[in-house]
Amino acid sequence: MELIRNNSRITLLSIDGLGGIENPKYGESELEFARTPNLDILAAESETGMITHVGTGITPGSGPGHLALFGYDPTEHDIGRGILSALGVGHSPAKDEVFFRGNFAAQGPSGNIIDRRAGRIDTAANNKLCELLSSRIKEINGIQVKFITEKEHRFILILKGQGLSHRVTGTDPQATGVRKPSSKPAAGSTEKESEFTSSVVNELTNAIDKTLAGNDSPANTVLLRGASVLPAIQSLSERYLLDKCLCIATYPMYKGLARLVGMEIAGSPEEEDMHHLASTYKNNKDNYDFIFIHVKKADSYGEDGNFEKKVQVIDMVDKVLIPALTYGNFSDRVLCVTGDHSTPTVMAAHSWHPVPILIRSNYCRMSRSAKFNERECAKGPLGTFPAKNLMALLLAHARRIQKYGA
Amino acid sequence: MELIRNNSRITLLSIDGLGGIENPKYGESELEFARTPNLDILAAESETGMITHVGTGITPGSGPGHLALFGYDPTEHDIGRGILSALGVGHSPAKDEVFFRGNFAAQGPSGNIIDRRAGRIDTAANNKLCELLSSRIKEINGIQVKFITEKEHRFILILKGQGLSHRVTGTDPQATGVRKPSSKPAAGSTEKESEFTSSVVNELTNAIDKTLAGNDSPANTVLLRGASVLPAIQSLSERYLLDKCLCIATYPMYKGLARLVGMEIAGSPEEEDMHHLASTYKNNKDNYDFIFIHVKKADSYGEDGNFEKKVQVIDMVDKVLIPALTYGNFSDRVLCVTGDHSTPTVMAAHSWHPVPILIRSNYCRMSRSAKFNERECAKGPLGTFPAKNLMALLLAHARRIQKYGA
Repeated sequence: MELIRNNSRITLLSIDGLGGIENPKYGESELEFARTPNLDILAAESETGMITHVGTGITPGSGPGHLALFGYDPTEHDIGRGILSALGVGHSPAKDEVFFRGNFAAQGPSGNIIDRRAGRIDTAANNKLCELLSSRIKEINGIQVKFITEKEHRFILILKGQGLSHRVTGTDPQATGVRKPSSKPAAGSTEKESEFTSSVVNELTNAIDKTLAGNDSPANTVLLRGASVLPAIQSLSERYLLDKCLCIATYPMYKGLARLVGMEIAGSPEEEDMHHLASTYKNNKDNYDFIFIHVKKADSYGEDGNFEKKVQVIDMVDKVLIPALTYGNFSDRVLCVTGDHSTPTVMAAHSWHPVPILIRSNYCRMSRSAKFNERECAKGPLGTFPAKNLMALLLAHARRIQKYGA
Repeated sequence: MELIRNNSRITLLSIDGLGGIENPKYGESELEFARTPNLDILAAESETGMITHVGTGITPGSGPGHLALFGYDPTEHDIGRGILSALGVGHSPAKDEVFFRGNFAAQGPSGNIIDRRAGRIDTAANNKLCELLSSRIKEINGIQVKFITEKEHRFILILKGQGLSHRVTGTDPQATGVRKPSSKPAAGSTEKESEFTSSVVNELTNAIDKTLAGNDSPANTVLLRGASVLPAIQSLSERYLLDKCLCIATYPMYKGLARLVGMEIAGSPEEEDMHHLASTYKNNKDNYDFIFIHVKKADSYGEDGNFEKKVQVIDMVDKVLIPALTYGNFSDRVLCVTGDHSTPTVMAAHSWHPVPILIRSNYCRMSRSAKFNERECAKGPLGTFPAKNLMALLLAHARRIQKYGA
């Protein structure tokens, strides 16, 4: 497709884990049960449908789910959590760095993992532990080591130096009652850089365990995963001629993903605040070609299996955020509301079910449906379509795609 | 997608030729007209949709239709009818064998074909003819020859030896009033094995005609088609980690296809019996990862253009089979009801129309539709989707696919 630049603006609101299925106790999905008068009016004026992110039957993680929304095939761009978290906390990655996602965790005297999250220690405790580790461990075999707090029990480990590889396994057993495994070269990797990096990780792990022994927090070890490097990926500007893009999000991983594809990152408070998301949008809406807004808590409560709380998040999106996004007319602007995957509370986990989507512009084939939910959107004019087609639709509504042929 | 093994069970009921279109005499399709209270209740609790098997507008044969249901692209796996029939009668194929599907047929004194099925002689008469041919013709040019009864007028010819190819044409003119054509190398095939195999087939045909001359049945010749060899195809266990799979079917071709992809074959009576299908399912349901149940007669009556009889088959599926399949709860199990293609009685032939489908598990986005038929399923939450996506959906509902990315 041949793209053009113009003055149009595109807003993409992703409500993480938006989709659901019937909760037998309520006889409806979270989105059906929620009070969404503003979304319902919007849906009637919009093109509605259902979107799949990675593939039919495939349950997306939040990283791949959002990458798909931005138009990148997540099966072609395998982006480790380490680099996403590093970008998320504002680190500017260098090419000689390898990133890991780390958990502060608790192990027993025998080395068996007791708690993979060390009682979900708070961010302040995490900060103290990262300071302790940074002061004691600066280098392993000529490789610089950095520890950066992410949030709660999560931190980022950065290895920096020559001869490193991200093709190594982590040390997170993903289970309790067992010892943490050693890092090894990833399956199929025979390069000597993988051998070397694994040996650094294993030596480092011993040093960390010694350093943390006897500290006053429940955390006495770390679990590492998601080894990754700065990936080669086009920016939204290169890919879609969307030159000025803004991410309005609270959680680091989403900011990281947005930075990776070239978005600026708006400031945010520590905790997700719907009013702050709305006001940040209002203050910036005229200055960007593309604005991505991320609401996390619908997914968090979905994963907790908390129907009522997930419903409340959707209620608040409708009450606070949607009025801000729909204020004014739709000349030269496009609004899309969807999510990155379903998180049905009855499953208390991400799922493969397609996610409702609406696209509002002045060029809509209106759904005239009275509700924004799974059932109504499944009957909508867009049908069920893969996320890789979404950006083309948004760019089309923004009149940013040239006619093909005469 | 990354698959896992667990204790879930998947049942796939294929009602051959299920789909239809309005019959003007009744104003409804066969499925709309049928009494299906059990399917209707099931559909309301299920995800419903429409499925296409080979491609939009393409009318599938039953072989490709089922191959597609099992998740194999039928355009990549061209499996001849000969090998399917051979597998269906329980033959264990060897690599130096070429298989043909044969009809016993009747030709006039001039050699023109009068009846391509020799009055649909019965299986007993077929047996006698195969014995006669086997006793008289054992070898042609160093190639071993075997004749195996399939059913009614259909038999299987096996050529076994060195230097054979399946890239040859058959001898069935697919019409009456004309002579049967000679076998030739298939279009584009220049290998000497094709030349040789054609010459064997043509010499064999002469020998068969001489042997059958003057026997006391209406059959005095044979028509051969579907030259094929044992294809290289992954088993369901290799492909989906579905290790124990069972086929419950009556007709040989379907058993053959099932064996080809690694299913065990349940015993069956000569004639299709809905009660026997149901009891076989009940006796085996807890012992297999995947059970495929095949109902043939809906298609047979569809091809006969017999609306009432096709409706009766669907009535019986609803009355006898569906209660067996829906008995108990859906913890750790998935039920799918669909067909391999449409066979509208007004067309008296297979057709390209998408086929209704339902998927029932504990993770359904329920259709709440009051009917299981073409019209209601077309509005269902699954939309219209290609059969290549079906197994991923069933495996997802069985919780056998890992989350993609973090």
